Amino acid sequence: MVRPDAPLLTAFDLGVTRGDGCFDTCRVVVEARGKRVDHFEAHLARFSNSAKALGLGPIDLDAWRQLVGQAISAWTLPGEALLKLNLTRGPEYGLRTGPTAFVTIVPMPDAASRLRRGMTAVTLNRAYLSLGFTDSPWLLGGVKTLSYAINMAARREANRRGSDDAIFLSADGCLLEGTTAGLIFAMDDKLWTTPTENSGVLRSITVEAILHEAEREGISVSRAFFTLADLTRLQGLWFASATGVKPVLRVDDTNLPHEPALTHKLAECGGFELG
Amino acid sequence: MVRPDAPLLTAFDLGVTRGDGCFDTCRVVVEARGKRVDHFEAHLARFSNSAKALGLGPIDLDAWRQLVGQAISAWTLPGEALLKLNLTRGPEYGLRTGPTAFVTIVPMPDAASRLRRGMTAVTLNRAYLSLGFTDSPWLLGGVKTLSYAINMAARREANRRGSDDAIFLSADGCLLEGTTAGLIFAMDDKLWTTPTENSGVLRSITVEAILHEAEREGISVSRAFFTLADLTRLQGLWFASATGVKPVLRVDDTNLPHEPALTHKLAECGGFELG
Repeated sequence: MVRPDAPLLTAFDLGVTRGDGCFDTCRVVVEARGKRVDHFEAHLARFSNSAKALGLGPIDLDAWRQLVGQAISAWTLPGEALLKLNLTRGPEYGLRTGPTAFVTIVPMPDAASRLRRGMTAVTLNRAYLSLGFTDSPWLLGGVKTLSYAINMAARREANRRGSDDAIFLSADGCLLEGTTAGLIFAMDDKLWTTPTENSGVLRSITVEAILHEAEREGISVSRAFFTLADLTRLQGLWFASATGVKPVLRVDDTNLPHEPALTHKLAECGGFELG
Repeated sequence: MVRPDAPLLTAFDLGVTRGDGCFDTCRVVVEARGKRVDHFEAHLARFSNSAKALGLGPIDLDAWRQLVGQAISAWTLPGEALLKLNLTRGPEYGLRTGPTAFVTIVPMPDAASRLRRGMTAVTLNRAYLSLGFTDSPWLLGGVKTLSYAINMAARREANRRGSDDAIFLSADGCLLEGTTAGLIFAMDDKLWTTPTENSGVLRSITVEAILHEAEREGISVSRAFFTLADLTRLQGLWFASATGVKPVLRVDDTNLPHEPALTHKLAECGGFELG
């Protein structure tokens, strides 16, 4: 356990110099009745897959459970927080070798509760074809790597355009994912999300948890690519991640319908209190 | 000045958590007659452009010159070394805010002198169209970011296939660049390199220095995309970076011609001693 300002990684850590590592983010809730980490085992499984894809696995699942347990024990701030698991390839030079592993916890960012009431997005070209990742594991499709510079630049571009966040668009015009969130679409009285196989889109634990629960409650659920032309046919669109379920009220210049009851339902399916 | 094992970055540094920052790598030579950093001002200019593209600029060029001067003064190991300039967006949480800046020097990796005698490469799909970066600055084309996880994974894939390194191929079949090197082609008694505008290919300071000098000596120089079908027409192919000029003797299953005199000439144009 170290203070937030304590230096931890050397100048040679490949997590810094090459973004060579992976992470996963979970929602933590501290209530009077106890603490919980939402969908922790699913996040840990995805984290483990990320590590394997980078040749950093298999990771010691029990050691991570223990480390997270220690962090959660020490975290007492009531309300929501974000827990991050981090694994880098470790220092390229220096006495110590081998991966660097650490977890962090921070309070849920203030922006999250604002965006849960509604957000706007712009679409930005990601330059990949929607099925461009077929048979190309080195492209790290579906791996939550530390190399997020483009995602961060896309969010800054969205902010520059007066929008809250960006949706990546494939070279063939498909809506892929948010910069740090999966997408849930409502259309034809069904819920949809983007195919993750071969598309490079990251599997979203939150989206999967929501759709799984929705399906259990009798709502039809499917996967498909949607294009900009489909926007006018949508009954709703949401960003979903560990930071919440956020209804998208406008994409570029297109206003989208928003049914608060449905947002409430999805949030409930995902285990989120509303902000 | 800190020891190589000294922890330097916090767990919240965006350089670690998001690969959000940039770097540049220069070759250092320590000889009896003195020390030098090859093409330093060109590297510094590219680094400055990277920082600007990330919204981390303008950087204080004189402060960087001074920092590099201090590092070079302290570096006395005879022979070649690699100097890296690093800039991250700094800690997302914690008391200190603002970018993290540091330089490192390490001896030239042993592999460099071996690869300068000849190397093999495989081509790997990069899933981008050759002109996919047009009007998309958020894709950070030409920006040397810290987000190199795919480049590192591609090199590991090449190694797994028994090859030294990988050449990225665009979705439309063009040879783009090495994982950490630019490409120089010899064909039709001219030297060529890949267009960097709109292709996402990083401008290579070493390639540009070599081609500039070659042109000054009367060799024709141009830019074009080449495909796998062009391989059999090549008179030679080289990886070029701060780690040297490396003749590629085989790409996938195609053996390439290699004229050692031309490699020698290119290395000389780049200011490299031969290993």
